[in-house]
Amino acid sequence: MTEYFTEDASVAAVNDRMAVGINPRVREVMTCLVKNLHAFVKEARITQEEWEFAIRFLTETGKICSDERQEFILLSDTLGVSMLVDAINNRREEGATENTVLGPFHVADAPRREMGDCITLDGKGESCVFEGKVVDLNGVPVEGASIDVWSDNAEGYYDVQQPGVQPRWNNRGIFTTGADGSYRFVGIKPVSYPIPDDGPVGKMLNQLGRHPYRPAHMHYIVTALGFQKVVTHTFVGDDRYLSSDAVFGVKATLIAPYEWIGDNRAIWRSSFDFVLNPV
Amino acid sequence: MTEYFTEDASVAAVNDRMAVGINPRVREVMTCLVKNLHAFVKEARITQEEWEFAIRFLTETGKICSDERQEFILLSDTLGVSMLVDAINNRREEGATENTVLGPFHVADAPRREMGDCITLDGKGESCVFEGKVVDLNGVPVEGASIDVWSDNAEGYYDVQQPGVQPRWNNRGIFTTGADGSYRFVGIKPVSYPIPDDGPVGKMLNQLGRHPYRPAHMHYIVTALGFQKVVTHTFVGDDRYLSSDAVFGVKATLIAPYEWIGDNRAIWRSSFDFVLNPV
Repeated sequence: MTEYFTEDASVAAVNDRMAVGINPRVREVMTCLVKNLHAFVKEARITQEEWEFAIRFLTETGKICSDERQEFILLSDTLGVSMLVDAINNRREEGATENTVLGPFHVADAPRREMGDCITLDGKGESCVFEGKVVDLNGVPVEGASIDVWSDNAEGYYDVQQPGVQPRWNNRGIFTTGADGSYRFVGIKPVSYPIPDDGPVGKMLNQLGRHPYRPAHMHYIVTALGFQKVVTHTFVGDDRYLSSDAVFGVKATLIAPYEWIGDNRAIWRSSFDFVLNPV
Repeated sequence: MTEYFTEDASVAAVNDRMAVGINPRVREVMTCLVKNLHAFVKEARITQEEWEFAIRFLTETGKICSDERQEFILLSDTLGVSMLVDAINNRREEGATENTVLGPFHVADAPRREMGDCITLDGKGESCVFEGKVVDLNGVPVEGASIDVWSDNAEGYYDVQQPGVQPRWNNRGIFTTGADGSYRFVGIKPVSYPIPDDGPVGKMLNQLGRHPYRPAHMHYIVTALGFQKVVTHTFVGDDRYLSSDAVFGVKATLIAPYEWIGDNRAIWRSSFDFVLNPV
């Protein structure tokens, strides 16, 4: 038992203070947090002025949060923490489709669509057919899988960012696979866009010499009975920001081909199969 | 260069993204932060729900901050970070008076007092003579040292917490030593009090089975030309919270005796010498 705080025994001074009988997981997480937080302060030899800067930064980050904006999630995203938490909690068999960040723009209960339907309601952008199969690890088609999709519009905004400007449910829809496990819908080739960068996180990115852009991507949530939920994107294979996603969402296996077809259905075609891991 | 994010190479994925030519100290601090932050997430195996809890906690902590309240400083204090930063930046020769936390209640430019003056203006509390010397590491008196002192009142509140209730500058004053380096003033024996515990930090302390109290203390800032500034407290030696200060401010060398005198000057006497470290 450490009685008083010392620089050398700073971690024990704090962690030994936790009472007997508290929630064991609270103890485990907080013990680990204090250990690593103190390690950071010691290793970086944080000065009093840097500490004051950190207090101001966190305060401003809290102040800018609102129902429409979550700056702490942006901070977590841009420091790779969101992707790390997702990775740790969604380890899968080799070959199963990987997760990536959910992002802040998913809306539950989008309209259910028929296979082949177009989800783009504002008539903007370069049309693209998205198609492929939902299969299990052995390649067997999964019937009755739900595919919830959403993307930005041709100007880089999600419908919820522009209420009254974009039609409601623009570039969103839910599809259900039949016996062959296949899916097909028409949307647009998504475009890259910046995360909100007029707040503290934007200033941080600027200090780090980083841009705020995300490479173009189509969002998916794929669910089926007996399989792990897949929350992921497919990325436009030729996007200039593929190697520098502001939120580190890109995985090599999620880069999808975009093939020029220019037929009567659409200008582009992007094929991608979702491989589900059993629960 | 790591191209895409992976769980194993998560730290490199984020840190390799920093641009060439940014401020070297920004790079150093952020590289170290990302390393330790990811180590924490991995070691504690933070779940998605815990991550969501953390986002909400940080957001609420930001929301409760105001001109009168700094919840992020409370968070830093209660996790031992404030004391750690102070310790790292104020390492001193053996025998020199140690620092402790400044706290949020210091007010610059308190009234200058004559030696022996009473700083307690509300007539409450058990009077106490504070006396001692300011000396250098060799015990030589330091002339012209400024001693800025402040404490709570007998009910556990600083004057700035009760404007209109307590007289302005109640239990505050600045004294200057003469040729013999000695100081002497009358105040009250301070009382223990809780840090604000009706916000997120109070909830955290509750989860950790910790109380929010600080042991009774008198604050000092001692400055003299040619010496390091000392920001410290003396603690009332018999306080029940000495071994469990909510902000870890207690150091063994800062515990001062409180002697019952009950003479015509005061009820208590507390003697403490300040030993200054040269700059």
